[in-house]
Amino acid sequence: MSHNLLKGKKGIIFGALDSNSIAWKVAERCHEEGAVFTLTNAPIAMRMGAINTLAEKCNAQIIPADVTSDTDMENLIDKSMEILGGKIDFILHSVGMSLNIRKGKHYTDLDYEFMKKTLDISAISYHRLLKICYQKDAISEWGSTVALTYIAAQRVFPDYNEMADAKSLLESITRGWGFHYGKAKKVRVNTISQSPTKTTAGSGVKGFDGFFNYADSMSPLGNATSDSCADYCVLMFSDLSKMVTMQNLFHDGGFSFTGVSQETVEKFNS
Amino acid sequence: MSHNLLKGKKGIIFGALDSNSIAWKVAERCHEEGAVFTLTNAPIAMRMGAINTLAEKCNAQIIPADVTSDTDMENLIDKSMEILGGKIDFILHSVGMSLNIRKGKHYTDLDYEFMKKTLDISAISYHRLLKICYQKDAISEWGSTVALTYIAAQRVFPDYNEMADAKSLLESITRGWGFHYGKAKKVRVNTISQSPTKTTAGSGVKGFDGFFNYADSMSPLGNATSDSCADYCVLMFSDLSKMVTMQNLFHDGGFSFTGVSQETVEKFNS
Amino acid sequence: MSHNLLKGKKGIIFGALDSNSIAWKVAERCHEEGAVFTLTNAPIAMRMGAINTLAEKCNAQIIPADVTSDTDMENLIDKSMEILGGKIDFILHSVGMSLNIRKGKHYTDLDYEFMKKTLDISAISYHRLLKICYQKDAISEWGSTVALTYIAAQRVFPDYNEMADAKSLLESITRGWGFHYGKAKKVRVNTISQSPTKTTAGSGVKGFDGFFNYADSMSPLGNATSDSCADYCVLMFSDLSKMVTMQNLFHDGGFSFTGVSQETVEKFNS
Amino acid sequence: MSHNLLKGKKGIIFGALDSNSIAWKVAERCHEEGAVFTLTNAPIAMRMGAINTLAEKCNAQIIPADVTSDTDMENLIDKSMEILGGKIDFILHSVGMSLNIRKGKHYTDLDYEFMKKTLDISAISYHRLLKICYQKDAISEWGSTVALTYIAAQRVFPDYNEMADAKSLLESITRGWGFHYGKAKKVRVNTISQSPTKTTAGSGVKGFDGFFNYADSMSPLGNATSDSCADYCVLMFSDLSKMVTMQNLFHDGGFSFTGVSQETVEKFNS
Repeated sequence: MSHNLLKGKKGIIFGALDSNSIAWKVAERCHEEGAVFTLTNAPIAMRMGAINTLAEKCNAQIIPADVTSDTDMENLIDKSMEILGGKIDFILHSVGMSLNIRKGKHYTDLDYEFMKKTLDISAISYHRLLKICYQKDAISEWGSTVALTYIAAQRVFPDYNEMADAKSLLESITRGWGFHYGKAKKVRVNTISQSPTKTTAGSGVKGFDGFFNYADSMSPLGNATSDSCADYCVLMFSDLSKMVTMQNLFHDGGFSFTGVSQETVEKFNS
Repeated sequence: MSHNLLKGKKGIIFGALDSNSIAWKVAERCHEEGAVFTLTNAPIAMRMGAINTLAEKCNAQIIPADVTSDTDMENLIDKSMEILGGKIDFILHSVGMSLNIRKGKHYTDLDYEFMKKTLDISAISYHRLLKICYQKDAISEWGSTVALTYIAAQRVFPDYNEMADAKSLLESITRGWGFHYGKAKKVRVNTISQSPTKTTAGSGVKGFDGFFNYADSMSPLGNATSDSCADYCVLMFSDLSKMVTMQNLFHDGGFSFTGVSQETVEKFNS
Repeated sequence: MSHNLLKGKKGIIFGALDSNSIAWKVAERCHEEGAVFTLTNAPIAMRMGAINTLAEKCNAQIIPADVTSDTDMENLIDKSMEILGGKIDFILHSVGMSLNIRKGKHYTDLDYEFMKKTLDISAISYHRLLKICYQKDAISEWGSTVALTYIAAQRVFPDYNEMADAKSLLESITRGWGFHYGKAKKVRVNTISQSPTKTTAGSGVKGFDGFFNYADSMSPLGNATSDSCADYCVLMFSDLSKMVTMQNLFHDGGFSFTGVSQETVEKFNS
Repeated sequence: MSHNLLKGKKGIIFGALDSNSIAWKVAERCHEEGAVFTLTNAPIAMRMGAINTLAEKCNAQIIPADVTSDTDMENLIDKSMEILGGKIDFILHSVGMSLNIRKGKHYTDLDYEFMKKTLDISAISYHRLLKICYQKDAISEWGSTVALTYIAAQRVFPDYNEMADAKSLLESITRGWGFHYGKAKKVRVNTISQSPTKTTAGSGVKGFDGFFNYADSMSPLGNATSDSCADYCVLMFSDLSKMVTMQNLFHDGGFSFTGVSQETVEKFNS
């Protein structure tokens, strides 16, 4: 059901790979709520993905972009404004990739060239995006940007590896830009810290199932799905959350403030 | 403009004193968004207040209740369900009063009987409310309750006095009930931590103006108004934030993550 | 081995019940490090306890005091200064008792008269203590007070019940007094948030063993013992931590920043 | 006065540039407390610095090392063990440099090659150091490492620029290594978050004086000096803080938990 929360709003959505992606659900929901937007992803991800189906469904154009390239990102912003007919009102940044995880390097044995690439793709890309928007004055007043993050930025989840560090950096960049962009242009910058989600990316992480079940047991409402995450993104893009900025918003069924569940304690009773 | 975010939802709103109250704005916005609700306040506050005007405007009935009385609170819940025709979907708890502040007692000279009364009114009341609802099974699945709080629960604002302690207690109770009520009945329990607001209550605090200006300067988007707070409450009551619970949500224009503003630094340049 | 870290310092130690108490270990270590101090506990606790043995060992006098009584607390401060020959340099507050737990009342069914008593004993007592010291100017410049707390103040541990709320209140009081006493007299006020500890009090909590094992598995260094906690208290009382105040210091082998351990994840692999 | 807290301990101290450096004070205090150690700094920093004076005073050898070079860091660890005659017990990481600040690039106009260099020097260097130690098994059981950080990792201080992001990354790395190194070898990894300090590096930051005064006004005990920071480092290196790991320890006179001071509010009274 639509509430017309984003009627007439213009956006850019990063990271829709396939129908398991959170970004895919966000696109569907933004479309339902009356927004128009462009879709973007890494050129390589798009070759593997089903993004055309989504684009048709949402009547959206696709603009491939490497998030580590200034040229690609400038092109993305310019084209999006041209296609959508004006400044951008909202952006979803759902981008992350760990080269060390992909190469099987443990946290105690990181390759630092890989790590810098991970940070560039997963965190600095948010800075780059906002810098280019800022310099082009491409975001409307009270515009809202959201990046997806994970609680490993606050506490150690060993299999999350260097991605934890990337997410900490991402959240710091969120505060930094939230301050400067808010002060200058009233643009809002936040992260949403989502439950472990059975996306194509998420499921690939080692030990994902045990971890997913643990998080589910430790969350009074259970793990949040990508559908509910999409709803929450819509709220954060809407005009009804105008004064929320520089925040990391936990969307996790209560996981973040649960110290232990009874089910967990019972497993440790000898 | 209405988005029908609360269409058919039933609620209880505590704390509307006059048109400067955040609760007043919340009532107006919930009404616009399609909710029906009852209004409540302390019997004494109602004698002073203009709440009848609000009740008429929102087509709501008023049920006086002393938040420290089990009998009154039980009556409030029973009557509300009777009037609204079923279980409650949302509750706003906007209740706080400091006897030590009122009596001019400094934080270093608190009267502990006053303090216990302050805690009872301002924090334990949220526990009492949720306990009675829980025992009567009075809240719908996925129902949502919000209490208003302030960042003095995390950091010291000297003039906020013992109210800081009351807000810490309130936020802890929020986590406790969020866990238990979520687990048992999928009810959500959160707080919203609002900018200093020029309500009749807020303005009474000593040194309020300097403090208000400071917070405004330290918030990249400026202080959040009670109107925008009402919008945010609507979002938290809606079905689009279903997996958010046990959280303290800063609604403050970015104050909470700003360490210093340039304006502030300049005042300290000699 | 002594480092003479507290040579010539005068203190008051609350809460030594028997040789399993953290406060007992703190007293032993303070004695080793050259401090003189008085011991105090509730009159009723002392009748059950072995505190005389400790007093002899440490050459300390015992002053019974009900922490909820102004008269008792004033007597404690006056007598301590008289016995020790001057102002107090350090205080350990290791005091907590939950009437609702003792009476078997679940968090969802609290008795509020019990709760207020719990808050009075476990949290307001720290305020009362500091207020009386402040008004008598009983603590030396750079004096240091520590109260013991637990991470349930930040996250929900269901069996910890209302004690979580009491600890949140305690930590807020710590910040409040840390501000005011620091500003006025350079006195430091902190809490130490200790691992679950097999004290006579701690072990009594329902489900303690499973919980203890869980915390041990989730702490990279394992649970901290009361001996190591005593060492840490000595550091916080010493002159080498002079600029640390208003803090909640986790002493927990890393539990507080561990999201999950591999052992825990494995238990959730189906 | 020495307490022999580090008697017989072997360490490595990074970052002593001149007598205003925190690392310089740490070296002096570690020497007093009975430790032996090597000193290291970037080759270029050493050419400018007065480190030889310190080395003589502490009877320490100097090993130049570029923290971004594996070869240099391996050499540093190997040589230090050789010189000191065994495994390392403590390390101070006081390393940070922002190329964007140096080049006058504002946060809204960062150069990302500079930023990656900043992250490499200021944050990844701590990972590299610990990785090399881990792989060489170069740190004793219960060994302790401390990196210096700043509260800009949590809240925005605009002039701190990208260094805030570097410090967030550093603190995340601290948690990651604290977990893995603690689990495997009982090595502790922490950061100390220090008040603004009038070091040669600190003073260079734009607007430093106003900022220093502001922090001083907002800290009930005033800003912590580098001398007191050195004392606190000694405590964290000692055996008396054995169960403290993965923590960010504020050493700031109470700044971190002060929301506002009366002096600050007064400046905002119109």
